[in-house]
Amino acid sequence: MKLEVVTIGDELLLGYTIDTNGAHLARELAGVGVEIVRRTTVGDGADEIAAAVREAIERTGAVITTGGLGPTSDDLTKPSIAAIFGRRMRMDEEILEKLKARWKVRGWAGGFPKSNEQQALIPEGARILTNNHGTAPGIWLEDERGRWVAMLPGVPREMRGMLADTLMPLIAERAGTGRETSVVRSRTLCTTGIGESNLADLLGDAARGPEGMPLAYLPGWEGVDLRLTARGLAAARAEEALERGTATLREKAGEWIYGEGATDLASVVLDECRARGLTIAVGESCTGGMLGARLTAIPGSSDVVLGGVIAYANSVKVAELAVRQETLDTHGAVSEETVREMAAGARARFGAAIGIAITGVAGPGGGTPEKPVGTVWLGVAADGRLEARRINTVGDRDEIRRRATQAALALALRVVRDETA
Amino acid sequence: MKLEVVTIGDELLLGYTIDTNGAHLARELAGVGVEIVRRTTVGDGADEIAAAVREAIERTGAVITTGGLGPTSDDLTKPSIAAIFGRRMRMDEEILEKLKARWKVRGWAGGFPKSNEQQALIPEGARILTNNHGTAPGIWLEDERGRWVAMLPGVPREMRGMLADTLMPLIAERAGTGRETSVVRSRTLCTTGIGESNLADLLGDAARGPEGMPLAYLPGWEGVDLRLTARGLAAARAEEALERGTATLREKAGEWIYGEGATDLASVVLDECRARGLTIAVGESCTGGMLGARLTAIPGSSDVVLGGVIAYANSVKVAELAVRQETLDTHGAVSEETVREMAAGARARFGAAIGIAITGVAGPGGGTPEKPVGTVWLGVAADGRLEARRINTVGDRDEIRRRATQAALALALRVVRDETA
Repeated sequence: MKLEVVTIGDELLLGYTIDTNGAHLARELAGVGVEIVRRTTVGDGADEIAAAVREAIERTGAVITTGGLGPTSDDLTKPSIAAIFGRRMRMDEEILEKLKARWKVRGWAGGFPKSNEQQALIPEGARILTNNHGTAPGIWLEDERGRWVAMLPGVPREMRGMLADTLMPLIAERAGTGRETSVVRSRTLCTTGIGESNLADLLGDAARGPEGMPLAYLPGWEGVDLRLTARGLAAARAEEALERGTATLREKAGEWIYGEGATDLASVVLDECRARGLTIAVGESCTGGMLGARLTAIPGSSDVVLGGVIAYANSVKVAELAVRQETLDTHGAVSEETVREMAAGARARFGAAIGIAITGVAGPGGGTPEKPVGTVWLGVAADGRLEARRINTVGDRDEIRRRATQAALALALRVVRDETA
Repeated sequence: MKLEVVTIGDELLLGYTIDTNGAHLARELAGVGVEIVRRTTVGDGADEIAAAVREAIERTGAVITTGGLGPTSDDLTKPSIAAIFGRRMRMDEEILEKLKARWKVRGWAGGFPKSNEQQALIPEGARILTNNHGTAPGIWLEDERGRWVAMLPGVPREMRGMLADTLMPLIAERAGTGRETSVVRSRTLCTTGIGESNLADLLGDAARGPEGMPLAYLPGWEGVDLRLTARGLAAARAEEALERGTATLREKAGEWIYGEGATDLASVVLDECRARGLTIAVGESCTGGMLGARLTAIPGSSDVVLGGVIAYANSVKVAELAVRQETLDTHGAVSEETVREMAAGARARFGAAIGIAITGVAGPGGGTPEKPVGTVWLGVAADGRLEARRINTVGDRDEIRRRATQAALALALRVVRDETA
């Protein structure tokens, strides 16, 4: 099954927003054997929308649009496409009531705005795609020849939710032809603390991909993700090949792999602590709360994370984390000695099992020849153990802080698992 | 002048790569008054490329393609488009020599690969766009009616370089007709604390855009950005219209506007504090360090931010922020009373001028009928002033925490500026 995507929005065409919905749709649809053959981006004008969607219907008979479903006057997707199908718009009282109820519950200021009623206007004969993540409902329109257009919101969170909840089952049903369909499947292993080319060296024969499957190296601040892709096989065969392929990768580079898929290292650390009944406290200088925010981003982190101190000023390191003034004077705030005292101090202050500390030069200013921008010390204190590590990382201030946070979590994982740091 | 962009590559259609070239082209071309009216993404197949480019030529007569110029067998952009113009391919000896010389200089292993010769194949009558950043040259093809296609590489660095060095002057020349050139210019105002439809109601007559210019509402977790766009005017006139238009928006919704362009609210708060010689300490529960991380993300924040306490566990709120156990028992951790004590406690503990506190239910668990997920209390303590505010926000855990952080900064800005909260 082939389909086209039409992406709607002036902000996309003007270059103010980068479209990520198209890529998400492609990856999700590939999983059920559906291929996107063309993607068209047009502005918010009714004529442009109508022209692009009409052409796409004529080519493939299956179209997904994203964007232009909001409450404001520039949201013209629904009436433009309804006109192609020769349908009139009607007010859906049920949706209108839901919109008003949602408005009331939230206790937003002012009455229900007139402009919001537009979101309850639905083309006649349309199927409604429920939106569990926002206000604008999605729409499925189909003609007597079975040609269809599904309209999704442009906000990525809403689009992804609606796709998973409502649209994918509908499309999978259409795509299922009784025969065994070949699929595109992939698996991703997440590594951290090792660069792309070192990984390739370590993988040896499997560097280009084990089992004849292509292997992609996807570097980011979290580390390098390894993505293995199986194409042209039936679902069960693809899964088998991926299973063998990932086993090979784990055998060769397992030490650097912390998870599979969209795994967050913070989540792995929390799970390992939870399993051992350990609690965590943090002491952060250059990251200013980012490590605490990473850990507490995970639902249920409250049974592991007690809290922490953002010790941005040196006086705070002394007063709140019991770093000795002498240590700061002799070795400086960015040093092995200071990070050790910070980690031990955070652990002691909060009575936690594990103390994690970060101090570094995040830039753009503050670098010296001995401690250039990107120099970061990480420390982890545990019962009878105190580990420190230095990284020299690259990037802008944000990237350096992200990489430092990730490296601190990687060090904590080794300490919690009682491995060599 | 209007043109279309055709983006070529299986990796884009399959969703493995996010296209950023389209946005870059749009922003650059807008500066010389050229508007992109449609962007089409197709795979590497010769037929798909030819169909998309032919349609684009027929609509606008001006097309830029990116991608498919490399040395491998799936790089079919040049022959596909040459066929549309009825041109044959010829080997360009000069380009071939350059390719070979480059190969030699780099000291790459093995002889010059046969497959690389393809990069020196050029359609007859084509103009060559020099590539100073890679091997594949770009191509400009034009027919007797003045309709043209410019083929650029897909690698962003090469594309950007070729655009700036060679293509922009050519296009600017076409776009300039002797008359003063019209441009596309826009200005963005950042609001927070008010929804899209309430903003529209507040703007009244100007809701669709003042001065006849379209107004786009761009909602995000930071708030709603208002983008005003002037089209079809000369540069000076466009700036004047934008100046008048933004003045109207400020007059009507100024209370909710915190900046212009890509302004970060954290940066505005830091600037206002710095100007008044005020320091900041934070006390964070549900955001777990995110507010501290936001503030310290700004270079130079260290002269304002002293530090903070991540008081995730209730025991930490009592021990570190002097919240009374009685307050927690009577009103709960998510309450006006608790957030007031947290803000005052953070301020006192660090000896800061301003204490900012956040406590809420970030979800997905932990909600109750009285305090559903998304209920967040914000508090700001200053000399002789203690303000608290509740918000009921929506979204997943990450979004709720981001929105809470933004709302805390907005409250802090009002207190620092000594406005009504």
